[in-house]
Amino acid sequence: MKDIYKLKSPVYIVSSAAVTGHEEYNGPLGESFDLSLPGDDTFGCESWEQAESELVRMAVGIALSKALLCEEEIDILLAGDLLNQCISSAFGLSKLSVPFLGLYGACSTAAEGLLIASLLASAYSIRTANAASSHNAAAERQFRSPLEYAGQRPPTAQWTVTGSGAFILSPFIKDAEQAILGAQSHLAVIDEVCPGRMVDAGIDDANNMGAAMAPAAADTLLRYFSAGGKIPSLILTGDLGYEGGEIFLSLMESAGHDISKIYNDCGLMIYSREKQDKHAGGSGCGCSAAVLACRILNSIKKGELDDVLFLGTGALMNTMSIQQGLTIPAIAHLVHIKGERRFCK
Amino acid sequence: MKDIYKLKSPVYIVSSAAVTGHEEYNGPLGESFDLSLPGDDTFGCESWEQAESELVRMAVGIALSKALLCEEEIDILLAGDLLNQCISSAFGLSKLSVPFLGLYGACSTAAEGLLIASLLASAYSIRTANAASSHNAAAERQFRSPLEYAGQRPPTAQWTVTGSGAFILSPFIKDAEQAILGAQSHLAVIDEVCPGRMVDAGIDDANNMGAAMAPAAADTLLRYFSAGGKIPSLILTGDLGYEGGEIFLSLMESAGHDISKIYNDCGLMIYSREKQDKHAGGSGCGCSAAVLACRILNSIKKGELDDVLFLGTGALMNTMSIQQGLTIPAIAHLVHIKGERRFCK
Repeated sequence: MKDIYKLKSPVYIVSSAAVTGHEEYNGPLGESFDLSLPGDDTFGCESWEQAESELVRMAVGIALSKALLCEEEIDILLAGDLLNQCISSAFGLSKLSVPFLGLYGACSTAAEGLLIASLLASAYSIRTANAASSHNAAAERQFRSPLEYAGQRPPTAQWTVTGSGAFILSPFIKDAEQAILGAQSHLAVIDEVCPGRMVDAGIDDANNMGAAMAPAAADTLLRYFSAGGKIPSLILTGDLGYEGGEIFLSLMESAGHDISKIYNDCGLMIYSREKQDKHAGGSGCGCSAAVLACRILNSIKKGELDDVLFLGTGALMNTMSIQQGLTIPAIAHLVHIKGERRFCK
Repeated sequence: MKDIYKLKSPVYIVSSAAVTGHEEYNGPLGESFDLSLPGDDTFGCESWEQAESELVRMAVGIALSKALLCEEEIDILLAGDLLNQCISSAFGLSKLSVPFLGLYGACSTAAEGLLIASLLASAYSIRTANAASSHNAAAERQFRSPLEYAGQRPPTAQWTVTGSGAFILSPFIKDAEQAILGAQSHLAVIDEVCPGRMVDAGIDDANNMGAAMAPAAADTLLRYFSAGGKIPSLILTGDLGYEGGEIFLSLMESAGHDISKIYNDCGLMIYSREKQDKHAGGSGCGCSAAVLACRILNSIKKGELDDVLFLGTGALMNTMSIQQGLTIPAIAHLVHIKGERRFCK
């Protein structure tokens, strides 16, 4: 079994974009998102599901325009989301005339997409577009109860992010150079990936995804280190939250790796614990996608951060499996992103 | 936009397996499936969803044992199904300690999986396992009504296959040679693929998937021919059925390609129109996966069939999008499979 896939040639994250709802705008990273829509998070649509499709459509559109590329220049589009049969990706992107690969990795979808896309872009010299999304109201009525029901949330529950992140990948440095924005001293490059295995730690509480996903994150990171992967400047999980993050750190520590000083989680970054009542933190495909697309990639491109292990985490259950009393298999995919200093012009 | 992806080196379909329910066993291909379970299609499980997981687990297990490979020798596992959040793949395969990529391509999932897997196997010299599945009773209660409701089915409705197909791919000829079975004079090889684009033809009838998917199948096949793809000995769609098959042939004819003599559809092959009341034919991820895994690959390996375009078709809607009055985007992915004569020993 192969653990680390070194790309045949580096793949540039030419551009990225995040579009979110108003709660995400009110959080600590609000200013960094490309577009955050005010109001009731319907974005002018008739349903929450269609609103989520609109988020995806806008995120991919903004990422394409930042890359100075049009849809005809993209070879493959990869996307997925949390809704049944991944409809927000399908309906949001069906008008793009680009070959489409639908993915389902629950909240790990952004990482799964970047992993597959970078492997293909590198080996076949193609450009890809990736997207992942979630919508709080659409997810709540699909996985738990409609918002109108006003269900009580336990302290371990996370808050599904209303947002979408999109990424344009290319193996061509000219694509990365033409998409340079103002303060950008570095290019963001994917050089290796490590696909995750499913791990079922026996958790059956749909309100404690963090605990279900933490062992999967530890499994992937330990495989990565065992196979020779180096300690980076930041280990960034997707949405373990406060509960799962603690478990992850203690699992890593038991295995002899104290990573607490270089660890963060997109679900902890996106909302303010003091000012926003989000319990154990943010979650959802849109959480890691939006935080990576804006805050993290902006920092890499400014040279503030140079070496990130992005570990997208996902819980592979559905409402029915929980009702049937089954435990939750989880997964975590790893994507290594580096900053590469631009040649002076 | 790249249309045809020539693999860097050919990828062998080392082994394949199909496990089905009793209705599929009673059809014309019944004898060719590796395992068909009698009884009520619960396969000893407590729910239809868990029964579907059991199908996937068994199909992958049989394919692995036919390949004379153990799970540690597989580098990536790719799977998907029709259930919400793809739970039959996750729960069926979570005990395999193999990196997992979850896919959602509706009924095109088998083709989408073979496409991604062959691209990765060829470029990174890895072995993959693929699976796709569906279960009639699980799908009916998820997409339409529970069987107990005894809803009337219109003539354009298709019958979701209870079955799973699994495939082991490898770029190493020694793997293909070691898995040779009795009458096998040829090896089955994937040499090129063409990923599909989403096409929304404006169909909003959840009981007429064939009509929704036919334009997507035509779009992919026309792109393939325009990009230099050759006419094969068999064009095999996944599950267009009687309704969609006719539309597909007429769309192709309008574009100047009379393919009627070399065309077939897995949904037409799996049930007997005379003896089994399945209306417009079979459908579901398990339909194309099971028919390809047994009947088609057996024929290729015996030298009866040498050149197949496998066009997996999928409708990317869900129950809610239909209830919200949205039309159905569809997709079709193409995988070119050839028979390669074995060297005499």
